[in-house]
Amino acid sequence: MRKEFRNLASPESVHEAIESLDLTGDPERVPLRAARGRVLAERLDAPIDVPGFDRASVDGYAVWARDTFGATETDPVELDRIGTVHAGTEPDTEVESGACVAISTGAVLPAGADAVVMVERTDERDGRIEIRTSVAPGERVMAAGADIAAGERALGPGTRLTPREIGLLSALGVSEVAVVGAPCVGIISTGDELVPPGEQLNSTAGQIYDVNSYTIAAGVEAAGGTVERYPHVGDDYGEMERVLRKAASECDLVVSSGSTSAGAVDVVYRVLEQQGELLVHGVAVKPGKPMLVGELEDAAYVGLPGYPVSALTIFNTFLAPAIRRAAAQPTPRTTTVTGRMAQRERYREGRLRLLPVGLVESGSNETLAVDTTASSDTTCSIDIDGETLVYPVDKGSGATTSLVEADGVVKMHPDTHEIATGERVEVSLFSPAVRPPSVFGVGEDDPAFSELLDRVDRPRYLGMGSRAGCRRLRNGVVDVALVTSGTVSTTLTTDTAAELEDSLTTALGFETTVLGGWTREWGLIVPADNPEDVTGLADLVDLDLRFVNRTTDSGLRATLTDAIDRLAAERSESPQACIDSIDGFEFAVRAHESPIRSVLDGTADAGLGLRSTANRLDVEFVPVGTERVFVLANPDRTDKDGVIALDTALSAAGVGIDADSTPASAVTDVDSFTGRPGYDRL
Amino acid sequence: MRKEFRNLASPESVHEAIESLDLTGDPERVPLRAARGRVLAERLDAPIDVPGFDRASVDGYAVWARDTFGATETDPVELDRIGTVHAGTEPDTEVESGACVAISTGAVLPAGADAVVMVERTDERDGRIEIRTSVAPGERVMAAGADIAAGERALGPGTRLTPREIGLLSALGVSEVAVVGAPCVGIISTGDELVPPGEQLNSTAGQIYDVNSYTIAAGVEAAGGTVERYPHVGDDYGEMERVLRKAASECDLVVSSGSTSAGAVDVVYRVLEQQGELLVHGVAVKPGKPMLVGELEDAAYVGLPGYPVSALTIFNTFLAPAIRRAAAQPTPRTTTVTGRMAQRERYREGRLRLLPVGLVESGSNETLAVDTTASSDTTCSIDIDGETLVYPVDKGSGATTSLVEADGVVKMHPDTHEIATGERVEVSLFSPAVRPPSVFGVGEDDPAFSELLDRVDRPRYLGMGSRAGCRRLRNGVVDVALVTSGTVSTTLTTDTAAELEDSLTTALGFETTVLGGWTREWGLIVPADNPEDVTGLADLVDLDLRFVNRTTDSGLRATLTDAIDRLAAERSESPQACIDSIDGFEFAVRAHESPIRSVLDGTADAGLGLRSTANRLDVEFVPVGTERVFVLANPDRTDKDGVIALDTALSAAGVGIDADSTPASAVTDVDSFTGRPGYDRL
Repeated sequence: MRKEFRNLASPESVHEAIESLDLTGDPERVPLRAARGRVLAERLDAPIDVPGFDRASVDGYAVWARDTFGATETDPVELDRIGTVHAGTEPDTEVESGACVAISTGAVLPAGADAVVMVERTDERDGRIEIRTSVAPGERVMAAGADIAAGERALGPGTRLTPREIGLLSALGVSEVAVVGAPCVGIISTGDELVPPGEQLNSTAGQIYDVNSYTIAAGVEAAGGTVERYPHVGDDYGEMERVLRKAASECDLVVSSGSTSAGAVDVVYRVLEQQGELLVHGVAVKPGKPMLVGELEDAAYVGLPGYPVSALTIFNTFLAPAIRRAAAQPTPRTTTVTGRMAQRERYREGRLRLLPVGLVESGSNETLAVDTTASSDTTCSIDIDGETLVYPVDKGSGATTSLVEADGVVKMHPDTHEIATGERVEVSLFSPAVRPPSVFGVGEDDPAFSELLDRVDRPRYLGMGSRAGCRRLRNGVVDVALVTSGTVSTTLTTDTAAELEDSLTTALGFETTVLGGWTREWGLIVPADNPEDVTGLADLVDLDLRFVNRTTDSGLRATLTDAIDRLAAERSESPQACIDSIDGFEFAVRAHESPIRSVLDGTADAGLGLRSTANRLDVEFVPVGTERVFVLANPDRTDKDGVIALDTALSAAGVGIDADSTPASAVTDVDSFTGRPGYDRL
Repeated sequence: MRKEFRNLASPESVHEAIESLDLTGDPERVPLRAARGRVLAERLDAPIDVPGFDRASVDGYAVWARDTFGATETDPVELDRIGTVHAGTEPDTEVESGACVAISTGAVLPAGADAVVMVERTDERDGRIEIRTSVAPGERVMAAGADIAAGERALGPGTRLTPREIGLLSALGVSEVAVVGAPCVGIISTGDELVPPGEQLNSTAGQIYDVNSYTIAAGVEAAGGTVERYPHVGDDYGEMERVLRKAASECDLVVSSGSTSAGAVDVVYRVLEQQGELLVHGVAVKPGKPMLVGELEDAAYVGLPGYPVSALTIFNTFLAPAIRRAAAQPTPRTTTVTGRMAQRERYREGRLRLLPVGLVESGSNETLAVDTTASSDTTCSIDIDGETLVYPVDKGSGATTSLVEADGVVKMHPDTHEIATGERVEVSLFSPAVRPPSVFGVGEDDPAFSELLDRVDRPRYLGMGSRAGCRRLRNGVVDVALVTSGTVSTTLTTDTAAELEDSLTTALGFETTVLGGWTREWGLIVPADNPEDVTGLADLVDLDLRFVNRTTDSGLRATLTDAIDRLAAERSESPQACIDSIDGFEFAVRAHESPIRSVLDGTADAGLGLRSTANRLDVEFVPVGTERVFVLANPDRTDKDGVIALDTALSAAGVGIDADSTPASAVTDVDSFTGRPGYDRL
């Protein structure tokens, strides 16, 4: 039953197949108020003259121009004022030689008059008007139809309606326009395991939230289409056929994203093959192999891969341009930036690869040599003056966070097997509005730091642990890293900020700038009321507790390991013996809240965690010790906006450090930061 | 009563005044489906682990990793298959040593298993599974929370929600998000003379359609605000006060555009001064002097000028950025292009001038010297290799067509009195999506040509008459011009296309390429059934008819004048005598339909026009003669996309000419073009 995708279509032939489909929506008439962004379906000629009458361009007096000939400042002409005409009223007087009518800007020129003298060049004296200048026929008058005359071509077909075109249409009195119809896209979500956001999830039964229906719907709308949603269907053939046919009869294009279960893909495939026409079955692109293109009844059909990143990438690459075309929406302007790869990327699968990447602006004032021949990515440093660095974001196709951690894709052609560190690449941004983050950081997962990030505009921070932070800071990829003292594993001199910086630089093996730091209290998380009466680390080793640890990249785990080492030394045991007697020491989870959740749901008796997190989630905290955390920065990037903003936020929170101060003297407002229990300044 | 704006504020102080106002909308919660383009109001931490369970990344077999250690292709390990688990179902089997469970991608890893072997590295044999590779613990498994763990910072405040962020939110099960509220902008249209589009207009009473309410509403929405419309009010103080206060109590910002009538501006001014606070009263910008900025109750208030171009320019310059800021919408990317002025522009009013300009890409392959010292704009030729030319679009502030005929503005600082021809200027585009037209033409107003333009993508054509077309073609501003033979006023040799081109070049005094041409029948338009029995030109001179002519720039008028000259010669009279005896010879209107409309509404007995127009509008046509019309192109621009498209459209219509052919032989499909009565090929 499992469908194999053997003869993969080339990306070019998929584009062709999709171009051969008709996605055109039904023509629509929309009220002018809803017309912004739409595209005129047909050319529009002016139905009326604008202005519809000879119109005064200034406030003044409507005159017969010949009466004013020869008038000057010193030798004015006098005319009888025989009436007044305001904008929006019909003149009730005719102008004859020797007379004039006061007129407002925008008012109808009275019969007999053929020009207007602006008020500034006149004086009123006992009902007689002194005209101090001569005017030619037509002066200060906008003739009827002079702006646009009835019958003139006003706007051509295909004109995109911005506020300006809407202005012309309203001037013409047009209150409804024929616009290119938005292609209607039916979205079907398939797969037994999918649940709509907002509903209850049964994780033990493998349920996950439906992502693709939402990303694709948003993508369709951004491309100018409208979305019709069809109820989620499982892997049942009959039900799937019914929904597919219904969608095909109601929409111009039907999109389903195969769930990750092979069953759903197979069902769609069978319906298409038996009831419609299958044009493409698999495409030689990574990610996105399991793509279907076909026709069902009068609708086009595209099946997207199940993984969210794959589905959106394939949608953006192949489908969004076709929807934009059908909707007559413009192709976004250039959305590529060039940058240099921050690390080597290898690839040998022989398909076009759309590699999701993140961007970081080096913002450096110094140019360092790039060693593009270095054999190991982790030891090659890259830092190029003011350039954009490009790093792969590849957390596995199933990850949804890579949706937001990447800024665009780099195309790796099938015969490109490697992009070297420092190599120049072109990045297709996800949208023209994408900008690199103001500051990019990697490091320890810390709830207080996470709050500080809220005070920075467009930061990107990946809580991958202290070790990853050190590694990426050394490589020159990130601007900042959050690192625990346990990760540095040496004695630091912290009497002055300068000493601290020096000792950190020595310990890390590369120059670093310390922006801030604090201490945090860690320990064991146990259920409320501490049923096992855990009092400290010794109990973890001695009692029969199911324990949940943090992953090896976590600084907190390094601190735990150090503490166990000390405990073992006290007991004259081997550290490994201690570790072996902890049930679950290797059961590691990623984030600071995760062990607590295991304790809360009863799958563990104790977890590694911070006092602040324990307090927030209402479990018991058994203190073990404190550890120091440092916010380190790449010294070449301290002038980046985001780094400056972060530095400011650290200082405002009372945990900033700058080179001229001792760590303690930098502290000004501890409370705003250490309102969190278990936190303290250095 | 008339309000003077004497102490004009500087643009900088207006920006400051507007920045001091609070336009922030009320916070909102929106469903995820409506969240695209919105901006997160608060930071969002993951409420759940994603995935929520240890999840198989491939189809295969869930195993206890240690069971596979040592397995190779040649020396596989055999395990008992003791069950199956699909995506979306709860495992009902526990994996013990020696056993495995068939597992689908996305399914829950059963208890006891700690890795998955992909199906491709296995074989099934009588319910026993051969494992041909060894896997490490965790292999092919995405651990619970590995994508994002509960409690991790998912998205920061201020994050703009694109399809990607919406994907992450749906993965987290979030179905509703707190977003930055859209500022609510109340729009009040004022002025006795304004009528909403779609309603009946009384032109004789000076009524015009309301434009500003529509352009500003569209502009507000484009900037991220929502619009509340208030009923149109006239110039009544009490009513205006009531509406202003109602709008101020319901909105964050109230915008009114003064009608052109001074009365309305004065009323707004008095309400603001007496009931609110007036911060700015007049700004030193052209256009836009009569601008008001203030506060009324808790709302901000901005009064825009009345003329549509002025109102939208002031809105875009001062208000749109403030609305975008309040809505937390991004500032559009760079929207400036540099180009060279195609003609001199002088200005001496001492205010910042925002000069609306159009763009044309020269697309030339040759570089010609630019004479920037030339004293007359009309004789200076400019044509610079591949550069953008910039020409002022200044049809008077009251014109609405300049809304769509301009692409952006050039800022002329108060102390800049002149921009010379050829001078480099920076153009701020109206929006990032603005692109210069594919082809820019000026010339004769011709209904058949206007239809041809529908076949070209993004053309711009101004029907300013044959003379203007010749002038602008010579100056190098336009790509093409439509010119009647009467304007050229010489005998043309038309036997071959090359001869035609040569004789036109000689007659015009500059090199030109002829893309196409046709003849059109012209004459006198009279009411249906021809009540005055007009039979020809002589009757126009001899009978007492009220006539409507075309403007002097029109080629058709030149043709009429030539015909009158010939009539005068036959009669041995002076041409002027003939002209003087035509009542209304100087009453000129702009467009080809305009004279007909005068005849239709009874204000004229005869008008100058084309047979095709007469037929369409159901009046009687008295033929007088035919005239030739040529589509001429700048020889340096024939490789522009739009010129090529126009050339193709001409050929398809059977009226194309190329240098290798005789005009006649180029004609292939006359009908599609000359389906219009009175038209014929050359």
